[in-house]
Amino acid sequence: MNYETPLFFRVMEYADAADRDVVDMVSGNPDWEPPEALREGLREYADLEPDRFQYPPSEGLLELREEIAARRGVDAEQVVVTNGTGEANYLAMARALERDRGDEVLLTDPVYPYYPGKTTMLRGRQSYVETDESGQLDPEAVRAAASAETAAIVVNTPNNPTGTVYAAETMRELVAIAEEYDAILISDEVYDHYDLSGRFASALETESAHRVVTNAFSKSMAITGVRVGYAIFPSELVDAAKSRHMLVNVATTRPGQYAVLKALRETPPEYHERNRQRLRERVATFTDALEAAGAEYTTPSGSFYVMARFDGYPGTLENVERLIDEAGVAGMPGEAFGDSRADWLRFALVTPRVEEAAERLAAFFD
Amino acid sequence: MNYETPLFFRVMEYADAADRDVVDMVSGNPDWEPPEALREGLREYADLEPDRFQYPPSEGLLELREEIAARRGVDAEQVVVTNGTGEANYLAMARALERDRGDEVLLTDPVYPYYPGKTTMLRGRQSYVETDESGQLDPEAVRAAASAETAAIVVNTPNNPTGTVYAAETMRELVAIAEEYDAILISDEVYDHYDLSGRFASALETESAHRVVTNAFSKSMAITGVRVGYAIFPSELVDAAKSRHMLVNVATTRPGQYAVLKALRETPPEYHERNRQRLRERVATFTDALEAAGAEYTTPSGSFYVMARFDGYPGTLENVERLIDEAGVAGMPGEAFGDSRADWLRFALVTPRVEEAAERLAAFFD
Repeated sequence: MNYETPLFFRVMEYADAADRDVVDMVSGNPDWEPPEALREGLREYADLEPDRFQYPPSEGLLELREEIAARRGVDAEQVVVTNGTGEANYLAMARALERDRGDEVLLTDPVYPYYPGKTTMLRGRQSYVETDESGQLDPEAVRAAASAETAAIVVNTPNNPTGTVYAAETMRELVAIAEEYDAILISDEVYDHYDLSGRFASALETESAHRVVTNAFSKSMAITGVRVGYAIFPSELVDAAKSRHMLVNVATTRPGQYAVLKALRETPPEYHERNRQRLRERVATFTDALEAAGAEYTTPSGSFYVMARFDGYPGTLENVERLIDEAGVAGMPGEAFGDSRADWLRFALVTPRVEEAAERLAAFFD
Repeated sequence: MNYETPLFFRVMEYADAADRDVVDMVSGNPDWEPPEALREGLREYADLEPDRFQYPPSEGLLELREEIAARRGVDAEQVVVTNGTGEANYLAMARALERDRGDEVLLTDPVYPYYPGKTTMLRGRQSYVETDESGQLDPEAVRAAASAETAAIVVNTPNNPTGTVYAAETMRELVAIAEEYDAILISDEVYDHYDLSGRFASALETESAHRVVTNAFSKSMAITGVRVGYAIFPSELVDAAKSRHMLVNVATTRPGQYAVLKALRETPPEYHERNRQRLRERVATFTDALEAAGAEYTTPSGSFYVMARFDGYPGTLENVERLIDEAGVAGMPGEAFGDSRADWLRFALVTPRVEEAAERLAAFFD
């Protein structure tokens, strides 16, 4: 059975195996420091009594759920602490499909490839709504695509791969459409701390029994490997999601939860502002060099990614591999994100070498 | 949707809320020390470079998979590092059911309650084969129950709740039955380090494309909350299991994997022997006191559990709650494990106060 395994790992392996220096801009792994309190939390945990090494509550440590709930303005009962946004999205999509209100999952094109993979695994059917050139999603296009068969609408803001931050009005309309069609809007907001526009709007701002918000500390704390995230369900949907979480994973790793809680409490806002500022500088450096190289490119309002299009060089896996071998820059093929960006390449700004990468691209395409 | 959520959490909450001292013998949470190298591994991890905080390979850190493979005599390609045995069993059962060779899951009675819960969640159908009074499973009874509809046979040795270690011949026959009916034997061996009989036999001893072995470091290292386990699949089945693991969880927590690897390499055999010896002493103390109280009881050959039957006091949730309130001892109702042990109570020997608990029980039933 093949669930359209994402290409990320394949491209990373190819880049690792190359016998030349390669600037790795493939994955969404931050290269910056986790908060010092996160490290300190792991050290503290290592010295706790044996009972603190045992099962936490299945839905998550109460203090962590309360901290998340207070920050997001919801009830702690609605929060399930998950193994990253990956599990949070899985729980949300499974919950939407098991309501037996249709088996269609509405996705965007371009799309984060895990969503169609999860849909197939959960025996749903994908449909796609194209975003416009700037990456914005037109709610009327979503409404036109929705039907009684629609179980879920899955969106991601700030968006991977386009870097678009959806308008507040779009988020409100998406919730309204989910209500109209008795579907569930699933809003993956894992890049919320990397909103460079100041215009990020969470789906949580619209009260509804038809929306689930997923998130994690993977990006905001630069700890994609620790695997601590969460989903916020409407109270009507949360119990079955907690059962599934228990039956799949029993609980989320406790040292990770402990360290994240400490980091949430003790990390100053300057940590996040510093990360955004670094990202802004990298965006400017990289897009300036792309401009000089005569490429088309996106300027992200949020998330880590710049998409670029080079004349006569479509975003195929083959072309990405050639770029690794001949230019020493590894990106992701646009075709991995659907049809609409098949001419494009995606570059993750998670390396201090963005200027060098852009110069290598310019030289290659010269 | 209710997947028969296990009663564990409900009983633990009831015991916590009691306004008297209660000896907690509910959960399978060890009360002994994790290996010192496990704690040291977490401390070391806290000081690593930022790139070590990012996604590990989805199927697990290569060195950890190689260490597990070497110990279990399999190829590292067959190993998926999971979020505990909980996820390992989920992956194995999902893999068996998605083969479309029937939707029946053969379980034992008594049964570990997560297995029927997972079966319902995965849209399978449970059938039960009763074990004998001593907890042994008769392969001929399994063969008689198996049919073309059988997708999986799920067993647990050393067994929770009976404490039975299945005979080597039983394990061989179970693999043979899975082959005969084109089903998958799933052998959950999470208590393998608590074999008190010296007779434990892993399903791995019988080479087959029809058996999956699941395990974790949760019990052997007394770290149920860290969530690091594994599944060993036949090479024919492993790729789709890895895809599901990636689509559900992306990866297993990296600090946990790092610490477990260090503990595997550096923990001397005496650590495990000390844990077994402590358990043997607790079994002797607790069963002596039950004997003196005139109760019927089991003497485990492995795992952490003693089952006891008191005249006229069946193993209902109501009776368990009364025992918490009036005797100050918390166990699990036998009915949580199926019909065959509905007259029994299960006590987990994960407290130094086993003698006190047995005396309280003796006084209550006097």
